[in-house]
Amino acid sequence: MNTRIVGKVLGYLLLILALGMVIPFFIAVYAQQYDMIPFAVSIGFTAVTGLLMSKISIKDKTKIKTREGLAIVTFGWILASAFGALPFYISGAIPSYIDAFFETVSGFTTTGATIINDIEVLPYGILFWRSFTHWIGGMGILVVAVAILPMMGSGGFHVFKAESPGPVADRIVPRIKDTAKILYTTYIVISLAEFILLLLGGMTVFESAVHTFATLGTGGFSTRNASIGGFNNSYIYIVISVFMMMSGANFSLYYDVYKGKWRDVIKNSELRFYVGIIVAAVLAITVNMNMHLYHNWFESFQHAFFQVTSLMTTTGYTSFDYEQWTTFSKAILFMLMFVGGSAGSTGGSIKVVRILALIKLIRREVTRILHPRSVVSVKLNEQAVPENVLLNIASFFMLYMLIFVGGSILISFEGIGLLSAGSAVAATLGNIGPGFDFVGPTNTYSEFSDASKLLLSFFMLLGRLELFTVIAILSPKFWRQ
Amino acid sequence: MNTRIVGKVLGYLLLILALGMVIPFFIAVYAQQYDMIPFAVSIGFTAVTGLLMSKISIKDKTKIKTREGLAIVTFGWILASAFGALPFYISGAIPSYIDAFFETVSGFTTTGATIINDIEVLPYGILFWRSFTHWIGGMGILVVAVAILPMMGSGGFHVFKAESPGPVADRIVPRIKDTAKILYTTYIVISLAEFILLLLGGMTVFESAVHTFATLGTGGFSTRNASIGGFNNSYIYIVISVFMMMSGANFSLYYDVYKGKWRDVIKNSELRFYVGIIVAAVLAITVNMNMHLYHNWFESFQHAFFQVTSLMTTTGYTSFDYEQWTTFSKAILFMLMFVGGSAGSTGGSIKVVRILALIKLIRREVTRILHPRSVVSVKLNEQAVPENVLLNIASFFMLYMLIFVGGSILISFEGIGLLSAGSAVAATLGNIGPGFDFVGPTNTYSEFSDASKLLLSFFMLLGRLELFTVIAILSPKFWRQ
Repeated sequence: MNTRIVGKVLGYLLLILALGMVIPFFIAVYAQQYDMIPFAVSIGFTAVTGLLMSKISIKDKTKIKTREGLAIVTFGWILASAFGALPFYISGAIPSYIDAFFETVSGFTTTGATIINDIEVLPYGILFWRSFTHWIGGMGILVVAVAILPMMGSGGFHVFKAESPGPVADRIVPRIKDTAKILYTTYIVISLAEFILLLLGGMTVFESAVHTFATLGTGGFSTRNASIGGFNNSYIYIVISVFMMMSGANFSLYYDVYKGKWRDVIKNSELRFYVGIIVAAVLAITVNMNMHLYHNWFESFQHAFFQVTSLMTTTGYTSFDYEQWTTFSKAILFMLMFVGGSAGSTGGSIKVVRILALIKLIRREVTRILHPRSVVSVKLNEQAVPENVLLNIASFFMLYMLIFVGGSILISFEGIGLLSAGSAVAATLGNIGPGFDFVGPTNTYSEFSDASKLLLSFFMLLGRLELFTVIAILSPKFWRQ
Repeated sequence: MNTRIVGKVLGYLLLILALGMVIPFFIAVYAQQYDMIPFAVSIGFTAVTGLLMSKISIKDKTKIKTREGLAIVTFGWILASAFGALPFYISGAIPSYIDAFFETVSGFTTTGATIINDIEVLPYGILFWRSFTHWIGGMGILVVAVAILPMMGSGGFHVFKAESPGPVADRIVPRIKDTAKILYTTYIVISLAEFILLLLGGMTVFESAVHTFATLGTGGFSTRNASIGGFNNSYIYIVISVFMMMSGANFSLYYDVYKGKWRDVIKNSELRFYVGIIVAAVLAITVNMNMHLYHNWFESFQHAFFQVTSLMTTTGYTSFDYEQWTTFSKAILFMLMFVGGSAGSTGGSIKVVRILALIKLIRREVTRILHPRSVVSVKLNEQAVPENVLLNIASFFMLYMLIFVGGSILISFEGIGLLSAGSAVAATLGNIGPGFDFVGPTNTYSEFSDASKLLLSFFMLLGRLELFTVIAILSPKFWRQ
């Protein structure tokens, strides 16, 4: 591995990060709050480190290959979180650095798990930065670098592949640089649409921006302690539900819509399955909760729709304390936490397309039992999925389960219940945020020990980078020449 | 599908079943208890039905093919449970027929989940029959038929394959009939050894027999309400632990030992992994529980060893109310419930070899990330596992998880907690017996509604027949010509 080019790219990444902090700095200046100087210091420190690293000299022909791509992505995310945590720590908004790191990892990975018990006392700059990390992390913190750095060249694909969610990295157009630009344009357009709709719903400019960032990135940080439930406004519930649902769909589909390829969109296997699961889950919970709690169809529907899209897209917003729901409805939510968003979306967890491929694989196996000599391929979007991709999906699923189970055993050292430990790991590994019991929607992650906070941060990174990138770096083979 | 030959074989199965009931009938006669007449009636009814069905005429050349094999196994197990439930129901030991059916399915599938709140008041014949179903079901209720019916011919392999646990049906010797005989001989020899050791430990002849049946079949029915904990005897704990461990290993290995192929046994990948998991789990729980509860190394070890082997081999006996354990230790037990026994053992759940194959698949995927052009095959016992077998294992794992999750959602209609619902499904689907909370070691399944009892019975059958057999029969393709 060429460590020099890795260091150099990471330097540029820090420069971009410092640039990102300039916006909340100006907000702090405008609001004349105590986070002004901390932001200035953080920007300075991040920019100087970035500048020094970007000066690393490399040979002209140095290329980013697989190993460099994996290293850039993994260390890029860790570094961005380590520096991104500075404003929280220096301002004293989060007095412990480990807590600040946890919060920033949670932001960039679009998890939305928080250790802050009272969000409403925080200054505007800090609140903005907190949600802005969701927006940056949702699309991928290195996508910007891929798009603007000429040195990435064709190696950008390795970075893009390692960072983009789903079993197969989707190039919308042949050049990866152009793909990155199209994705960001789409992202900005949809963000603007939500921003305006939230403004129309009575949110302030600040609130609209912050919640747009968190929705588009499927993050989940809010400005209210009671999350979106704090607004107690059906219009806002519905708008955010719809945009969560949009953010959990494959972004390349919006480009297809733009190009007029409606047929491709409507026939997309993953989209159909994604919408199908949401419809079925919303229906089941609406009927169940109307009977047992709300006794009002509209109220049942709005909370069902909100919580289903929120947990399935791995956003993690809450409109209602779903711990009060029946076990049946909670069981559905728990299951959705393992489904997640679509490939090429900002959503986390296992991803709809993987679940779909494995279900189709099961169907094929049943056919094979009855007709042992039959040769049928598993198809998605009318195309056969190669057997090695199926095996990759299967191993992803198994690895996800192993980490979930192993992680739960480790977290259970905290002495919390099995459901609490399990849902804390499911909620961080799946980049969701809230879970059940000890990490339920009305609780935070503040009570965990430092060791567990670091472990949960690790799970968030593992989940966001889709396991294999990080696992590959941890394998001894990676470091052998 | 040729329904006539299916009916005929099922007739013979009922005759064998009636023969099996003769032993508890004689015990009832000897003990002069109220279950004497009920057994006589059950035997008569089962034998007459069996006799009538066995008289179905078939053409000389009728062969058992895949479909017939699947149908014989699935309906054979349902029929055996339906008729096997008669003594419980007719004697009034279990007043509800659905409860009696649940208990019998639980017996044959070697689950050991019970709906009886007070076992100790039951007559000897009933107690014997209850545990004897474990012993029969452990090796497979149709293995006897395969071994003795000449009409099964080469079709016996389809039946054997559908009934024997593991991804690949293992023929120890070329002829399936001889394989069945070798397996039964091994089974009887090991049973005798445990029977004698339990006698030496102070159990009565009756208790020794009953607990031997349940251990060898990895079932879990006892004669005491407190399960094995009721004996409060370290010697008995250790003996049963060792025999549970032996019953969870591949029985063909004992034949290898008998043939002197020690090297094959020691090098067996699955056995090594199986023993490795047990050692690691026992170690972790011993240390953890010594610190938090027992403060006595031997006591910690004996209960750790007992509960680890009991839940992992899917026996489900308890030496101690493990609900009192720490979340850490309980989390390990919960995980083991999904590992299960080895292929070719009497244990249930996913099976060690499948977990091992999938872990090796993950390792290969990591290698592939670093060396995309590398071609490495996943090896077990120094032999490459074909890719289609890997895909079959992967789809089994996914299907298992889907049924677990879907089942938990359905069972959560009972209004019990998430952990209770989930562990009830894990404990029945994995053929274990006890789970956590509502179905914990000190509770029974008696409080469930009839609908849930039938659903859980279905899960037990699904698990015992390794999902695909039953799922294939439920698919519309099966019934199309």
